[in-house]
Amino acid sequence: MTDLLAAQIYKCSHLEGEFRLRSGAVSGEYFDKYRFESDPQLLRQIAMRLLDLLPPDVDALAGLELGGIPIATAVSQLSGLPTLFVRKEPKSYGTCQLAEGGEVSGRRLVVIEDVVTSAGQVIDSSRRLRELGAVVEVAVCVIDREAGGQSNLASEAIELRALLTMSELHASGGR
Amino acid sequence: MTDLLAAQIYKCSHLEGEFRLRSGAVSGEYFDKYRFESDPQLLRQIAMRLLDLLPPDVDALAGLELGGIPIATAVSQLSGLPTLFVRKEPKSYGTCQLAEGGEVSGRRLVVIEDVVTSAGQVIDSSRRLRELGAVVEVAVCVIDREAGGQSNLASEAIELRALLTMSELHASGGR
Repeated sequence: MTDLLAAQIYKCSHLEGEFRLRSGAVSGEYFDKYRFESDPQLLRQIAMRLLDLLPPDVDALAGLELGGIPIATAVSQLSGLPTLFVRKEPKSYGTCQLAEGGEVSGRRLVVIEDVVTSAGQVIDSSRRLRELGAVVEVAVCVIDREAGGQSNLASEAIELRALLTMSELHASGGR
Repeated sequence: MTDLLAAQIYKCSHLEGEFRLRSGAVSGEYFDKYRFESDPQLLRQIAMRLLDLLPPDVDALAGLELGGIPIATAVSQLSGLPTLFVRKEPKSYGTCQLAEGGEVSGRRLVVIEDVVTSAGQVIDSSRRLRELGAVVEVAVCVIDREAGGQSNLASEAIELRALLTMSELHASGGR
């Protein structure tokens, strides 16, 4: 099951062409994570599988801007758990919230992300959510790029639960 | 039906307290649109109602960052239409896309937004999508604040279809 889903994600999101990477380098291939979020059938399959990774005692999901938001929304629809929308930078007016959509303090949140590399964004957002009084012990992602994210999060006392690793994705696509 | 849904949205999103508005002024009430997007049952009801507002010949939804993304994701799940995630500012690396998630050129897109005031963001995003070759004729939103959005969009040859007006929301909350 996981292998079939991995192959579908790979087929959908692995693009070939000429892409300028964040580093400035040019690559002949690019993994476009938004492709699998755009496909409603694929997103639903992913969300159903992520349900199994949620801890039992969760008050709300916390989807990280931007790519974590569609994932969290789809998981929210299937689980019935409310979701918060966590900004990279809190806005400075209105409710002044880092996390839009509801209360943070005292709630047990599971951070939802699409792809985790070194987990910098997950760590930054989790620290801010904790400063606001949330309990964050688990982060769930679709793909772990296996670039230090798991151990970096462990240092923050956050368990990373990934549906797939990038190795599994590549293996599925190479078949 | 609309009145009941309006009352639920009002109850969920109308906050009382002390809020600093974007203008710098302080208000004793605030309409927090993210509240109704955070509630999975409410979001599903809204998305089901928005299905009726979609034109028949759509290739994809175009959810506007940030508040349009959960709406578009939920409508995508119900309609089976793919969704694009439209950034306020395109990123400058990777696939360099204003709209993440798939092709723009030659596709008939319906812009999805949560709340429309003067429609500045919808107009800006629609112009950019058209520059990239998309056909944009309809924008669908949950709430029309009735602050010029409809006529401003009409000037751009875009029809605004709103599930509710802010007047309807307030009327439902006053009952």
